[in-house]
Amino acid sequence: MSKKKKSDKSSSEQELAEGRKTSLHELLRLPQGPVDVASLDSRATPGYPGKGKVDAPAQSELVGQRLDELQERLYANGREHEDAPSVLVVLQGMDTSGKGGVIRHAIGMVDPQGIALKAFKKPTKEELSHSFLWRIRKALPGPGMIGIFDRSQYEDVLAVRVEGLVPVEEWEKRYEQINKFEADLAASGTKIIKCFLNVSREEQGARLAERLANPEKHWKYNPGDIDARKKWPAYMEAYADLLERCNTDPAPWHVVPADRKWYRNWAVAQLLLERLEEMELSWPVADFDVAKEKARLARS
Amino acid sequence: MSKKKKSDKSSSEQELAEGRKTSLHELLRLPQGPVDVASLDSRATPGYPGKGKVDAPAQSELVGQRLDELQERLYANGREHEDAPSVLVVLQGMDTSGKGGVIRHAIGMVDPQGIALKAFKKPTKEELSHSFLWRIRKALPGPGMIGIFDRSQYEDVLAVRVEGLVPVEEWEKRYEQINKFEADLAASGTKIIKCFLNVSREEQGARLAERLANPEKHWKYNPGDIDARKKWPAYMEAYADLLERCNTDPAPWHVVPADRKWYRNWAVAQLLLERLEEMELSWPVADFDVAKEKARLARS
Repeated sequence: MSKKKKSDKSSSEQELAEGRKTSLHELLRLPQGPVDVASLDSRATPGYPGKGKVDAPAQSELVGQRLDELQERLYANGREHEDAPSVLVVLQGMDTSGKGGVIRHAIGMVDPQGIALKAFKKPTKEELSHSFLWRIRKALPGPGMIGIFDRSQYEDVLAVRVEGLVPVEEWEKRYEQINKFEADLAASGTKIIKCFLNVSREEQGARLAERLANPEKHWKYNPGDIDARKKWPAYMEAYADLLERCNTDPAPWHVVPADRKWYRNWAVAQLLLERLEEMELSWPVADFDVAKEKARLARS
Repeated sequence: MSKKKKSDKSSSEQELAEGRKTSLHELLRLPQGPVDVASLDSRATPGYPGKGKVDAPAQSELVGQRLDELQERLYANGREHEDAPSVLVVLQGMDTSGKGGVIRHAIGMVDPQGIALKAFKKPTKEELSHSFLWRIRKALPGPGMIGIFDRSQYEDVLAVRVEGLVPVEEWEKRYEQINKFEADLAASGTKIIKCFLNVSREEQGARLAERLANPEKHWKYNPGDIDARKKWPAYMEAYADLLERCNTDPAPWHVVPADRKWYRNWAVAQLLLERLEEMELSWPVADFDVAKEKARLARS
């Protein structure tokens, strides 16, 4: 086990030597204070260690190999201990920002047995009859699992706010409720990685046009996407508010530039990898007598 | 769409030309009649188109690319139509036969958004208070999804029978109940792929020894594994019965030789691919006016 840990360290050191002096977490973490979404660069590629799109598959593969190893260790701990830690990746962003693409290409590198994926759609009647956090709590990852939220509690201060689905007094309270909820969650052993996939209005237009131009992509298109697009400024205002007001130490926001798909996918995988590395997970220790079991096996 | 379909056909034809004259489904399908598990070769590699372990990653990659494409089409249909088909892969096998390995390496090639994975453990009190199929029904894949059962309804005629957890009159009825259940499921549009991962007793011994020898694999070991191993003949008798009695046309059994991990993983992926190919899925047709939406986008 200690041998394993040593090899982790040297792998991290190697990565640092290769040019990533600063963690991606630090590079993408949103600073405290007021947010102007339009000023956040959606085409940048901060921290990317390769050349660009050309070597993105190879770079992602490198991240994937490490992810695979550490995720198995997290999962193993979850199988052995009820109080094992878990991870929660929250994906938020406008239509076409690539929540699905991240799940397919970044999360898809991980063993499906360790992933608890939940896509939050328009709430059902039952969900609406409870507090907005009810369905969120039900979907939290168990011990040793990596939960992925495709949309999340933040829809309740986004679409709900922009579309006026509840009175302002109602959604105004939610920022604090979310902060409290996330702080409790972090305190109970869940590492939270919140990613705002920042796609520009221009790039969204291009992606919607591509979907309309290609019959194989029509199923991804929804006329409602244009309705939301027309309310872009109102959505950006709602994003600015939640990014500022829910940017806490236990659950900070990361802004992932999302106009370049290859960067976006690599970045989310790398953020997840860094979190797993920080956890310094060891393999669970056997709760049985190894020598005795070897003897039993030999006799069997 | 018709263009797409043509390319499917030529891809299948190409595969046939490359040497797989017979589908893997036909090769691995268990013939009707009495079954003697010990006589089923657990080290064979029927239908494998490559050289062996050395080119298994490349062969799996080939299958993975096609799987990825067809799975997306299945998923797209599920997003558009409530009556879209679905697929259910049932994985059964003794400890160490590699249900987890198949999920990690074969199912892991597919977009996690299209996978509904369910591992059936020892039933909870609530589950025991219902019919044995209750928890199975709850876990069935929705439209467009690929469901994966890690263990299944068959545990209720396996461990339950061998360990004597219910009276014989009870489990005797279950074979017919399962056949009825699976026939209904198939009739309602779910393609069922049942895989018995056939590991030999000898290979199981080697794998358990490996788990005991490596502290990083201790978490995969459970002293109960030896208890079950000691009852190998009783388990094989129970397997022989369910393989014979639940080998129906709508839901036939496939016996996957599982002593070679690389073959086992490739074979399950290939079985899944063949099922998806048979479905001749087309992309769903837009339920909106494409020209009108292009104009709306241009104005937005």
